[in-house]
Amino acid sequence: MKSIQTVTSASNPRIRLLKSLQTVKGRRESGLFPAEGLRLTSEIRTPWEAETVVLSDSFWEEYRERLPQIVTDALAQGKDVLQVPDTLFQTICETQHPQGILAAVRRPEFRPENIARGERPFLIALENVQDPGNAGTILRTADAAGADGVLLSKGCVDIYSPKAVRASMGSVFHIPAAYTDDFPGTLRRLQADGIRVFAAYLDGSRSLYDADLSGGSVILIGNEGNGLSAGVAALADERIRIPQPGRAESLNASAAAAVIIYEALRQRLGGEAHAY
Amino acid sequence: MKSIQTVTSASNPRIRLLKSLQTVKGRRESGLFPAEGLRLTSEIRTPWEAETVVLSDSFWEEYRERLPQIVTDALAQGKDVLQVPDTLFQTICETQHPQGILAAVRRPEFRPENIARGERPFLIALENVQDPGNAGTILRTADAAGADGVLLSKGCVDIYSPKAVRASMGSVFHIPAAYTDDFPGTLRRLQADGIRVFAAYLDGSRSLYDADLSGGSVILIGNEGNGLSAGVAALADERIRIPQPGRAESLNASAAAAVIIYEALRQRLGGEAHAY
Repeated sequence: MKSIQTVTSASNPRIRLLKSLQTVKGRRESGLFPAEGLRLTSEIRTPWEAETVVLSDSFWEEYRERLPQIVTDALAQGKDVLQVPDTLFQTICETQHPQGILAAVRRPEFRPENIARGERPFLIALENVQDPGNAGTILRTADAAGADGVLLSKGCVDIYSPKAVRASMGSVFHIPAAYTDDFPGTLRRLQADGIRVFAAYLDGSRSLYDADLSGGSVILIGNEGNGLSAGVAALADERIRIPQPGRAESLNASAAAAVIIYEALRQRLGGEAHAY
Repeated sequence: MKSIQTVTSASNPRIRLLKSLQTVKGRRESGLFPAEGLRLTSEIRTPWEAETVVLSDSFWEEYRERLPQIVTDALAQGKDVLQVPDTLFQTICETQHPQGILAAVRRPEFRPENIARGERPFLIALENVQDPGNAGTILRTADAAGADGVLLSKGCVDIYSPKAVRASMGSVFHIPAAYTDDFPGTLRRLQADGIRVFAAYLDGSRSLYDADLSGGSVILIGNEGNGLSAGVAALADERIRIPQPGRAESLNASAAAAVIIYEALRQRLGGEAHAY
């Protein structure tokens, strides 16, 4: 059983590493990402793993008699738990009023081909989605709807950025998110397994409500400003449009994703919807 | 026909008024709100009205030969069109890299009782929604789905704040948004007209997909953290839950709104969905 270590210097290498996790580069080089706050850190579970836990002095004062399980687990497993002054804690956080607990989490390397589950896989695939709030919100919606996971083209925002993790409200620890260098190739392999690819498309040839989304499905969502690339849209089995009888030109990317994901869920539940 | 006036002083009363529109207080006292950028200002139409249009020097240089219609209209109608130095323009804007055009828009006073239209009204009602991004996105979704309008409790965020206007992507100029001091009373009056009130509720007794949303409907969305107040939820004709077979505890407010609004649209369109 390890004990909590006190660190006070901003130049301590572990503090420098923790600080670097606020950048894409720091997260890529270390394979770690930061999770802040009591609620979020309580959601961490295998295959995600907290490598280091950091507490602020104020947090320690408030919680010393009832340390969260993530802290006791980390100590029992011989991992680093650091206690740092509040001002130093602030420098490793992105939020302005942190609760005083942060974990550096090892990011699992999900393989796109291993995400689809069961006889009727249900996947969401994002191409070049840029806004971390949208990416995190879509992950949360996919999680709520019980999707198998989310595929991301390498041009997507980092789903493990603090803003995306926060928008996911913990869903980042519930369902797998896998980046793929070969986005079209990954979609084609899923198609070869009998999974149908549905592209959300403003000028889609079929109304969402006329499409059959009840089988194995991938729902493709494109970039906020430009939609799906022509190559990826061409590859889809169906291009579906969300009916828009009003005057708005389009929907927000995460609202569009929610509408399609939930229409797929409605069809998949069939007569069992009342049970959920 | 007026001509464009040059203003260079930050202490000019009109500049001070424009600056004040970034605050709730300034917008409330003047009845005006700011709309920034070419796209957004091009969406302004009756009953919304641009009272003043401001151009930056750079914008004028770039667009002097092809002034946007909002500028020529304002001049023709004898309204103020101001040209200001770029640095001064920046001080009246919320965005960091403004395009150089901003309009101060007169906010119409919609009356809640006048918003419902036709035999099957379709309204969204927000209680204490706090995030401007959520409020603007819900307005955009309601607009896309062809809803009649949005009712807001007085505890909601200002739908005319720059962030909410931006998130609405112009929908703030497409459908009416009406604040009401007596939110429960307004809902009861709609019920007296035969309109059914559906409350989005995590523990709702009926699955969304078992509810009949095809008639005159109000969809109630509550605060991001606390949901609907007990009093308002009790008043609803039905409390509906969005099925969540996955592990997320809840959906983002604007994603939840999108799911319910579009399920209502699906039911309202019936066999005509293919036409939209």
